[in-house]
Amino acid sequence: MRIVIPVFDGFTALDAIGPYEVLNGLPKAEVVFAATRPGPVRPDSGTPALLAEAALADVDSCDILLVPGGPGARRRVDDEPLLDQIRRLHDLAQWTTSVCTGSLLLGAAGLLKGLQATTHWSAVELLESYGATYTPQRTVFQGRIVTAAGVSSGIDMALALVERIADRTHAEALQLLIEYDPQPPFDAGSPAKAPQAAKDLLAAWRL
Amino acid sequence: MRIVIPVFDGFTALDAIGPYEVLNGLPKAEVVFAATRPGPVRPDSGTPALLAEAALADVDSCDILLVPGGPGARRRVDDEPLLDQIRRLHDLAQWTTSVCTGSLLLGAAGLLKGLQATTHWSAVELLESYGATYTPQRTVFQGRIVTAAGVSSGIDMALALVERIADRTHAEALQLLIEYDPQPPFDAGSPAKAPQAAKDLLAAWRL
Repeated sequence: MRIVIPVFDGFTALDAIGPYEVLNGLPKAEVVFAATRPGPVRPDSGTPALLAEAALADVDSCDILLVPGGPGARRRVDDEPLLDQIRRLHDLAQWTTSVCTGSLLLGAAGLLKGLQATTHWSAVELLESYGATYTPQRTVFQGRIVTAAGVSSGIDMALALVERIADRTHAEALQLLIEYDPQPPFDAGSPAKAPQAAKDLLAAWRL
Repeated sequence: MRIVIPVFDGFTALDAIGPYEVLNGLPKAEVVFAATRPGPVRPDSGTPALLAEAALADVDSCDILLVPGGPGARRRVDDEPLLDQIRRLHDLAQWTTSVCTGSLLLGAAGLLKGLQATTHWSAVELLESYGATYTPQRTVFQGRIVTAAGVSSGIDMALALVERIADRTHAEALQLLIEYDPQPPFDAGSPAKAPQAAKDLLAAWRL
């Protein structure tokens, strides 16, 4: 079960590492972080650099494609060589998944036309510009394409995917392993729930 | 606000990256991943290597110390040079925090004697061997020492810490930014909740 995670400068680290920590527990999992060229790739905040071990073009098999988002994803929606690799890996894969604005890369690659999909709450219009219909759920399954909402939702998506690939007990065992019994101290994780003051503060940060 | 994250081969990536994604949003945050020597460090599954930018011994200021866990943490409880660095950084820090079995390193460094603390559910006896009293909560504050339970709990801990350091609105804005509105598809995230079959499967994996 080879899981291929394309990375690029400006990706959001938790988009990749959240579901990685779960999918990595699939039977015979092998995770490949791949970039345009092998070598260090920097996430949105600049640190920590992560070493991509393979060039995307050299990845010759892929069971699960997992595309993370982040400011770097938004900047790459016209990067045709990257989109070509996403299309090629999608053709090889059993499952094509995205987290957060990784969905914009799936959209730009033409993979979401006519489908329901989700993304970070701040990217709904962009997502729909690629012919998808935004669905405000944490995880949206459409055939073998699975999109997750913003950043942390990749963990929920990965657990749901493990149930489909292995079984529910396997997914529950991995949930227990990462002690995923979330108890956020506040209830501000979606635009519908967050207080206006928190939204205003985010807006002031220009996000 | 300098956040220092010691890393070592065999750390669990999500232990570090979950709270990193939140703490990174503190005002003037600067995150430093540091290891015994600068260079690539491999998490428990072997990939992706992450580049530590500094040697721990060269880190001369620290506001938040964040110690991740993982099999590599369990293996380092007798690593006196690492424990010395943890003690030194703790003396510099305003807040000393751990995620998962990172608490065993705090314990081995002598920082948890007589305190309440938490850790991964599988490491309770080890934690208590260092003079701490296990408290089955996601996050345990004891003065300026904060321990979080297994792996994913670092996200909850980091949000609670941001409230103390900045304020609640700042923490809520970061929760919204990472769309942390968790909806796990199962309710198996703690030993009290997980079905026996999931526990048996984990035991069969020898975890």
